[in-house]
Formats: sequence, C-alpha cells, structure tokens
Amino acid sequence: MIKAHKKKTMTLSIKPLGGVGQIGSNSTLITHGATSIIIDCGILFPMESTFEINYLIPDLSKVDEEIEAILITHGHEDHIGAIAHYIEAFPEAQIYAPLFARELILEKLSHTRFKHNIELLLPEFQVGDIKIESFHVNHSIPDTKGLMISTEKVSMLFISDFKIDQYNPHERLFDFEVIKEHGKSNRNKICFLDSTNILSKNLQTPSEGSVRKDLEEIILNTTGNCYITTFSSNVHRIQTVIDICHEHGIAVLPYGRSMKKYIEIAERCTFLEPKGIIYDAENKHVKRKKVILLTGCQGEMRGASSRVTSGTDKHFKLKSGDSFVFSSKAIPGNEKVLAMLYNKIIEQGADVYLDPMYKIHVSGHPGKEDLRIIYDLFKPNHAFPIHGESLFLQEHCDWITREKLANESHFIQNFDKVLATDNQIEIIPGEETPPLLIHGNMLEIERSKISERRKLASLGSVYVSIFRSRKIDIELSFLGLPESADDYKSELAEHIFEITTKTKKLSDHEIVEKSRVFVRQFFNQKLGYRPLAIVHMH
Amino acid sequence: MIKAHKKKTMTLSIKPLGGVGQIGSNSTLITHGATSIIIDCGILFPMESTFEINYLIPDLSKVDEEIEAILITHGHEDHIGAIAHYIEAFPEAQIYAPLFARELILEKLSHTRFKHNIELLLPEFQVGDIKIESFHVNHSIPDTKGLMISTEKVSMLFISDFKIDQYNPHERLFDFEVIKEHGKSNRNKICFLDSTNILSKNLQTPSEGSVRKDLEEIILNTTGNCYITTFSSNVHRIQTVIDICHEHGIAVLPYGRSMKKYIEIAERCTFLEPKGIIYDAENKHVKRKKVILLTGCQGEMRGASSRVTSGTDKHFKLKSGDSFVFSSKAIPGNEKVLAMLYNKIIEQGADVYLDPMYKIHVSGHPGKEDLRIIYDLFKPNHAFPIHGESLFLQEHCDWITREKLANESHFIQNFDKVLATDNQIEIIPGEETPPLLIHGNMLEIERSKISERRKLASLGSVYVSIFRSRKIDIELSFLGLPESADDYKSELAEHIFEITTKTKKLSDHEIVEKSRVFVRQFFNQKLGYRPLAIVHMH
Repeated sequence: MIKAHKKKTMTLSIKPLGGVGQIGSNSTLITHGATSIIIDCGILFPMESTFEINYLIPDLSKVDEEIEAILITHGHEDHIGAIAHYIEAFPEAQIYAPLFARELILEKLSHTRFKHNIELLLPEFQVGDIKIESFHVNHSIPDTKGLMISTEKVSMLFISDFKIDQYNPHERLFDFEVIKEHGKSNRNKICFLDSTNILSKNLQTPSEGSVRKDLEEIILNTTGNCYITTFSSNVHRIQTVIDICHEHGIAVLPYGRSMKKYIEIAERCTFLEPKGIIYDAENKHVKRKKVILLTGCQGEMRGASSRVTSGTDKHFKLKSGDSFVFSSKAIPGNEKVLAMLYNKIIEQGADVYLDPMYKIHVSGHPGKEDLRIIYDLFKPNHAFPIHGESLFLQEHCDWITREKLANESHFIQNFDKVLATDNQIEIIPGEETPPLLIHGNMLEIERSKISERRKLASLGSVYVSIFRSRKIDIELSFLGLPESADDYKSELAEHIFEITTKTKKLSDHEIVEKSRVFVRQFFNQKLGYRPLAIVHMH
Repeated sequence: MIKAHKKKTMTLSIKPLGGVGQIGSNSTLITHGATSIIIDCGILFPMESTFEINYLIPDLSKVDEEIEAILITHGHEDHIGAIAHYIEAFPEAQIYAPLFARELILEKLSHTRFKHNIELLLPEFQVGDIKIESFHVNHSIPDTKGLMISTEKVSMLFISDFKIDQYNPHERLFDFEVIKEHGKSNRNKICFLDSTNILSKNLQTPSEGSVRKDLEEIILNTTGNCYITTFSSNVHRIQTVIDICHEHGIAVLPYGRSMKKYIEIAERCTFLEPKGIIYDAENKHVKRKKVILLTGCQGEMRGASSRVTSGTDKHFKLKSGDSFVFSSKAIPGNEKVLAMLYNKIIEQGADVYLDPMYKIHVSGHPGKEDLRIIYDLFKPNHAFPIHGESLFLQEHCDWITREKLANESHFIQNFDKVLATDNQIEIIPGEETPPLLIHGNMLEIERSKISERRKLASLGSVYVSIFRSRKIDIELSFLGLPESADDYKSELAEHIFEITTKTKKLSDHEIVEKSRVFVRQFFNQKLGYRPLAIVHMH
C-alpha cells in the first residue's frame, strides 16, 4: 500500500462500486492523480419485491474522491438508474452519455428535482490526464459504447455489457478499431469484460436478426390478436416486430407506459422507425387482428402483460385463437410469477410461446467465443472479469487462465482497488460496503427496518392502548392476524386489565413491557406464533 | 348432467382437488356409488415465503362425500403434507400407504394431536365396489406406487409421480404387469399421468445410476471437505454418496434435521444401508476429509447449507479446497436465493458444482418417451394429464393428440369432475375453489389478512393513541418506517393535537378517522408512501 502511494501520479486506480459479484448497480470509480471519474450509475433490483424497496445503490458516502466526470455506457437501468443520487452526491461532475442514454436520463430527471446538463459521449476526449475513447458495441439496447481509458503507460479496456452481432439489420457492426490499435501497443494493457453469459452453452450469442423468422411465423399463424411482450428498452426487437407487421399490413399497437416511452425516445433519436404504429387502444378502425406490444415481460404486477392475462385490462381480453409471445427470458427470481402468468393464458384458451421452444429471444451478452475475439484483439496483460455473480466471475477467471487469454486473470469484488502502473498491477482488498436500500422519495431505509417489515409480514401486529382515568379502558387492534384472532379480544383485554390493576408494585414502564410480552405469549399459545406488539399507556 | 345421475351406480367419478394446473397439493377424489376415496393429501408451497404461510391445502369443506379410504402413493410432502388436515376433516377414513410413506406420516403425526392407524397399501384390495391395485414405480423417493382403480366397466390408471429407471442399483424395476393386463382388456380405459417433464428436452429421463460417476470424481478430487446437498427424501441419492464413501474409506456425515430423519426412517424400512455413516459432527476421530450430506438444497434460510455458507454454523466453516455440490435442481422461485448461496461459497474460496455442468442430478419424472411406454402398454381411451402447471397439461394433451397415444386427451382443471361409464366420459366443469392458506397451529389465514400483511411489509405502520383527560396526551409508535421518520414525531403530534382540539364539531369517531387519514397523507408528503395507521382515542 505504501508503494502505491509513492507512485501516486503514475498509478491508474480502478475500484468497482457495484456490478462485480452481483448483477446490477454497475458503477466503477477511476482515479489518476487528481482526476477521478465514474463509469455508470446503476441500480440493483431488490431481492424481495415484497418490501417495496425501489432499488439499491452503492453507498456513495464511501467515495471521498472529487468526481470530475461520469461516463455512461448505455441506457439500461442497471447503468443509469441511480443518476439522481449521483448528481446529488457529486453535483460538480460533468455527465457524458451516448445520445439514447442521454435522452433517457433527461426524461428520468424530469420527474425529479434535479436538473443537469448531459454532454454527448464523443469518440475521443480528455478528462484531466485521462484520455477516453468510446466506440460502438452491440447490445440489447441501441447506442451502447465500449470504453478505452488510457494514461501515459496504461490502456484500460472496459466493456461491461456487449455482444458481437454480425446480422442485426437495425444496428451497425461492433467497432473493433480502438481495441485493435491499443492491442498492438506494448503498454500495460488491462481489461474489464462482461461475464453474464460465461456459463451459457451458447458459445456464440445468436444475432438479434435470428428471432425474426419465428416471430413472423407466429404472427402470421395467429388467427386472433398476437400479444408480444419484451423488454421495453429492446428497441431492435420492437423494430423487428414493427417491420414484420408493416410488411404484412398488420396493425401494431404498443401498450403500457414504458413501452410507449422507449418507442417515443428511440424514434426521436432515429433509432426506431415507427412505420405507422397505432397508439390509441380505442382506435375503432382496427377491426382485424392486431399485434400488441406489451410491457411486463417479467410478470410485474402493474405491467400490461399482467393486466391483460388477469382479465383486468380495460381494452384487451384474452380469447381462444390469441397468441401470447414472451420475446424475453425470465430474470432469476421471476420464474414462479411467470409460470402463473403462462397458466392464466392457457386457461383462457390462448397459446403461449416461450424461448427456447421458439427462437424468439436472444441475449445481449457475449458467449465465450465472442469474448475470445476481444481478448485476442487486445492481448491484455491483466484481465478482471466484471458484470456477473461471483460464480460467473470465478469461471471467467478460470477460463482465461485455461485458454491463456491474458497473462493473468484476477477475481475481484466490489470495493477492491486495482492499482495499475506501467508494468505491474496491485490489488488492495476492499472493505465490504453493503449497498443502500432506497424506498419512496429517494430515501434510504435501514436494514433493521426492513427486518421489522419482514416480521410484520410474517407475524402480523397487535396494538394495545391502556387508558387510566377514573376507570381503566383497554383498546385492541390487530393488523395481519387471522380473523379467528378476533375471538380472543375480550379474553386478552381481561388479562391486560389484570396486569394493569393487580400488579401495583410495577412502574408504568414495567406494566407496558409486561403487557407487551404477555400479548406475544398469549398469541403464541393460540396461533403458534408471536405477532409484534405495541402497548401505549396513559 | 341428468344422464350422469341416472346411471349413478355405474359411473366412476374423478375430481382432482389439487395438483392439476399447479404443482403441489396433489389430491384426487374418486366416487363410485356410495363409496368415496381420496388419493393423496398434499400441500402446496406458498408463492411468497415472506408471509410465512406454512403451506396451502385444498378447501376440504367443499368435499361433501363421506370418505371411506385415503390412498397414499408416496411420501413426498406434496402428497402427504396435509394428512393431519384430512384426518381432521375425514376422521372415519382408513388410510393406506406404502411402508416408507407410512413411517413418514406416523412421524409427522407424532408432532400433532392426531393419532391414526395407517394400513399398508397392498398390491390388491377392495374399498366398497372399487378394486384397487398398486404396483411399484420408480421415482425420486423409495417405495412409490402407481394405482389401477377399477370398477365393473372402467379401468382407471393413476400415476401422478414416476419415472422409468432401468439402471438404479438401489431400487427394483418399474412393474408393468398390472398396466399390461388392463391394457389388453376392452373396458373403458382412462388414465391420469405425470406432466412434470413434458417440456423437457430429455425425452428419456436419465437413470439415478447415472449420477454416480461425477459424484465419485468430485468427492475423490476434493482436497478439503466435500459438502453435498440434495433433497433429504432422495434416499437413493444419499445411498449413492454413502456407497462411494464406503468404497474409498471416506467418512460421511449427514447434517441437518430432515437429512437425519429421512436416513433414520429409510434405514428402519430397509431402503437404505448406512454403512458406517457418522452422526456426530463433533467426532474428533475424523481428521481427514469428510463428505457432509446437507439439508437446504433450495437455499432455505434455516437449512444446513445456508448456515454453512453464511459462516454461522457451529461445526463447519467453508475453506479453500472444499467442494460444495448441489445434487439437486432449483425449484422455480428459488433461483435468486440460490445464486446468492453460490456467490458466498465462491467468495470463501470453495468450488461450486452444479447440474447441468456436472451430471450430479436427475429428475424423478418421466420424459415424453417414458410416458409413451405407459400409453403404449395401457392404450387408453381417454387421457387426462395431471401433475403440472396448465402450460404443461396443455402441451401434454397436444402431444397425446399428435402422437395418437389415446383416443382422446382432455385438459382438465382442479375441481372439474370426470364421469366415466362403460363406454363414454363426460366432464363437468368445476367451480374455482382457491386453496386455503395455513399458518401456525394448522390455522387458516384469510387472503384479506395476507393482503394486510403485504401492506405492512411494503409501507410500514404508524400507531397513534390520543388520551383526553385534563390535558391531551398523544403517543406515537412506528413499525417498519425509516429512521428518518422519527424526526417528524413532534410535528405529527402537534397536527393531531390540533385535529383533536380545534375541530370541536367532530364526533369522536370523526376525530379518529380524520387523524388516521392525516397521518397517511402527512407521511405520503414526507416519505412518498402512505403507511398503515391505527388511531385509538379515549
């Protein structure tokens, strides 16, 4: 550590704040001398949606550096979702983003009290002593960039999300030039690449173009309406559906707020040609079969897919002859909710189309052979797998070693610090810094409070107030207890009356505490569990 | 329907109470004349474990028939878990179970207030006019039976869980004789078969014997301890591990309560040879590498796997050189919890072994080609797919039709009633009867109360008591609110004081209601959401 400090001005320091050892909240702090930049400001989605934690963010109070710039690689929520928190923490930082991400960020900020100027992420520019090059990569959202961060002696390749797509009709090819150029140099080359699909059997991720055939067949063979749900940010997928419908004269209708938002912004940025899609679900001119592009491909409770399948949507009801196409995959944790959705569709007589039974979805991340192309071009000295669960990072490391794709590979975790000089690297283990839970108005909610919510959810609660004036009055309320608990109200009130009156040697505080413990024990006997209890006494 | 009633004594009626259109709570009501029997009494595991619903059971109050017998096919929880509720509802019913399931049921009942005699399920016996034949099938728990239920004119084949395993060294072969025999007859043949794997790419489910090779290699190549977690009821898997260890002189130690329970009962029933396993985790004589058989393969919070990986177990700590083998698969919904478990193991330097990267788990259910064998032997007139989500049942139906495996296939749902006579069938659509949620001491908890718990979990709660005597006293408590909410306590109390004093025209009830609404609005402004609120006043 002392060694590192001595060479301070020569050292490039890289510290992931999120996204390493977990999928989500991608954010990386880079420091060179007095200059600090952050790549991406993502959110992590909560493990349990029950507690309405809106999202998790890295604990930015642990970042002491003065941030000069924030670089955004693309517009997915796990890369831009926490932008308002970052602006709050680093109000002086200049934000650079690709066009599509910029428009998504501005739209997001328009719902907050934060205003901020967002610069376009250009192919080449400087922040302090750091040279930044950005180049086009393929991914499941338009306008995604890879980054080359370089100092005098170090070239750092950073592509957290990408695929290599040779046949996507809606997007240009992966631009390898910057990688090639730096690959030829004999600088200290280090790289940080995507581990998402490292365990996948698909060694080469199929092209976005490969889903068109099955989607077209399903659309044409459907006699009723064809519902297609996908990630709203997957603009190329949406374009494929629009193209098919346009060619066959079938009406196509986006449905659900975020679907409309992404289409509107993508059109404005010329990443999408709407070709006569219809926005009005009540348009009476469309009497024939429609294709409806729906939000909620993860079974989100408020998504359009969930509304339509549960029969609560006001415009669309499923019927026999309809198709329901999931042009998506289940994000881990959503499998059970989705299974229920499939059941509901089948029970209403419509057909369900799923990946991989049909070729209707492809990943936006690289298979091993795709990664190999990048490693072969860049020939890194040191590789640091990112963007994946620890299991994935470890396999990525092992694979690099087995295949000799870098001189060395390193398993790093969030908050570890990588120090790179002209010819060596050093890794300083970081302190575990759990992300903050955010609920409501951008407010932190403590883990102890979530644990209280968990107890409320699993045990219910009892509220007792004891009013002592001339006589003693006891009022009881239950939340989350079974109806059968109501039968015990008078018995319980009698017991509390006794505690209050018969135990005269007790202080008020002791009466309250004794009553509280009694309530919990009482219900443990009757119900088999101890609800939370609050006792007020006046 | 009138037709059916006329032929009442001739009609065999079959009504699934659970397990059709969902996986779990398997139970089927069969009536012939005055005789009614039930096959299996399973529980359904809750969708969201947060609310501590212990399990769901069919609503037995909707069963008017007098039940003479309950037949158990095997000892999995989704077939025996609700046995105490069935005994409570049908105290006169005689229960018949295979040996292993019988011992599991008796163990289960020993923890309840219910005592009941359980008869062995014999190969052939009568209940009223109904003839019952039971025969051995393969599955992922020992001693699983298929059933042939027959009346004068109808043969009903019922195998809700099975596989066909030709190479399991621990179990005899599937006994096809009864199926063959009835298959030759020209009675009205109807069948109810397992749909679990109908969407699987494995057309023939691999044998239990096929996991031995990779398990052996992993155990031998591990330098530290080898942790193996599997379903505790998978006695054959446990035997395979014991055999490997026995042959190589490696100590094997079952760890976790249910693992020990199943091993103890399986040994007693002679379904398992313990071959010198060690029960004492503190046995100091075992200094070398151990194999530890763990509970908690689904990442259950209280399972041994979770304890060991989180570092909270008092006997075992993971270290570099250890292996952690998941000889199991993720049950849908558990993927995310399991991903966290894998991460923790990797982060402690141990290796993770998962299916399908290693051949360490096989299913206990039939692939399509396994099912075809049964259909070909039985040659049913009518096939009714069971044991699966609706999506699976529909595909099973479609496949039977495409492959002409029965004269007709029928998509039925829970509570539909199938009426079978000598040469025809009729299906009477059932009324949707949601299963009951059970929590605590075998008590129902209403859906409205779970919805209250959901609100408590996602919004927290506020308790206010207002005491009016000489002066006004206000006490406030919060549960599940962020710590920052405490800053608003005095402001909130002042507002409530004003409502109580300044609005003299209001009734007590109106003051309480106005205060309650105020509390929720107040926090909506401060936090961005409305906690539940309860107000008491005297």
